[in-house]
Amino acid sequence: MDVNILLFPDFETLDAFGPVEVMGRIEEYKLHYISVTGGTITSRQGIQVLTEDIKDANPYGILLIPGGQGTRSFVHDVEFMKTLFDIAMKSEYCLTVCTGSALLAKTGLLNNKRATSNKQAFEWVTSINTDVLWIGKARWVSDQKYYTSSGVSAGIDMTLGFISERFGREKAQEIAEHIEYIWNSDPYNDPFAK
Amino acid sequence: MDVNILLFPDFETLDAFGPVEVMGRIEEYKLHYISVTGGTITSRQGIQVLTEDIKDANPYGILLIPGGQGTRSFVHDVEFMKTLFDIAMKSEYCLTVCTGSALLAKTGLLNNKRATSNKQAFEWVTSINTDVLWIGKARWVSDQKYYTSSGVSAGIDMTLGFISERFGREKAQEIAEHIEYIWNSDPYNDPFAK
Repeated sequence: MDVNILLFPDFETLDAFGPVEVMGRIEEYKLHYISVTGGTITSRQGIQVLTEDIKDANPYGILLIPGGQGTRSFVHDVEFMKTLFDIAMKSEYCLTVCTGSALLAKTGLLNNKRATSNKQAFEWVTSINTDVLWIGKARWVSDQKYYTSSGVSAGIDMTLGFISERFGREKAQEIAEHIEYIWNSDPYNDPFAK
Repeated sequence: MDVNILLFPDFETLDAFGPVEVMGRIEEYKLHYISVTGGTITSRQGIQVLTEDIKDANPYGILLIPGGQGTRSFVHDVEFMKTLFDIAMKSEYCLTVCTGSALLAKTGLLNNKRATSNKQAFEWVTSINTDVLWIGKARWVSDQKYYTSSGVSAGIDMTLGFISERFGREKAQEIAEHIEYIWNSDPYNDPFAK
């Protein structure tokens, strides 16, 4: 199974690379760092990452969409959004972290589905598409193939939850133990909700 | 203040980029991704990162040393270790995550100082240098300018602790809130110790 991590300028580092730390421990998963332009993409924290062109990616895998400052402009970028719609629609599963859910919401694919996002950016994210059933108190939410998480670190909790559903709770616990991560395994335990 | 994040082949992604997420929120800090060779460095999870040559770095800053599979060979690489000794000695503060403490221990700079490491690799790490005062139960340990943490995710807790000491607890709490991270702020609370 291919895991496509979609990077764009000013993505939030931990939004992408927290889930990567978890996904990277599943033998069946092959991780790809992709972008709409290909080439070097720089995170909000200045990490320059080499990416594959999204056109060369297998779209029928798992798609991970991080959030970050970059989402504020890309949500209005028609070409970017068309490309995102196409791969998100084809993906077997689609996971977003933080304001990555604003991008996914904008495609319309979350319409009438339950979803969440960063609690500090919640007003902005939910304004992008009011046809999404936004959940104000949740560490993460899943609805069919879509998994959306709260801010930054919540992406790690969600990814462990995702792995737990696919490979069993023991596997998720084993990964959490290996990375010495104190897993908040209850999606309804959201200490950052207002 | 320059923050030098030392990358090497097969470094563990979250060891480096967890602390980066925290450090990147301090205005006074400028983050640099450096390596002994310069050029592209690939993490254990396949992230290809562009790095600056360590020779071009200001060594009198904060040094962050991640762990990961790569430490197993680099600890025996004489040229790498000489370069690491030089920058670690000159650094104002030196932080290690996971098996990054094995590399720092090998330089001799941790001799007779308190330090910790990943609990699953503890036997190997402590065997590298028995003159270090290894602490078996600690989320992180500081001794003078040296901060060492347990495995992977513990690096985020340590970095928040480091920021707390420099900029006050409120600042650290504010960052934890922004990244929606449930901070284990007690260095003695180590749920992964045997």
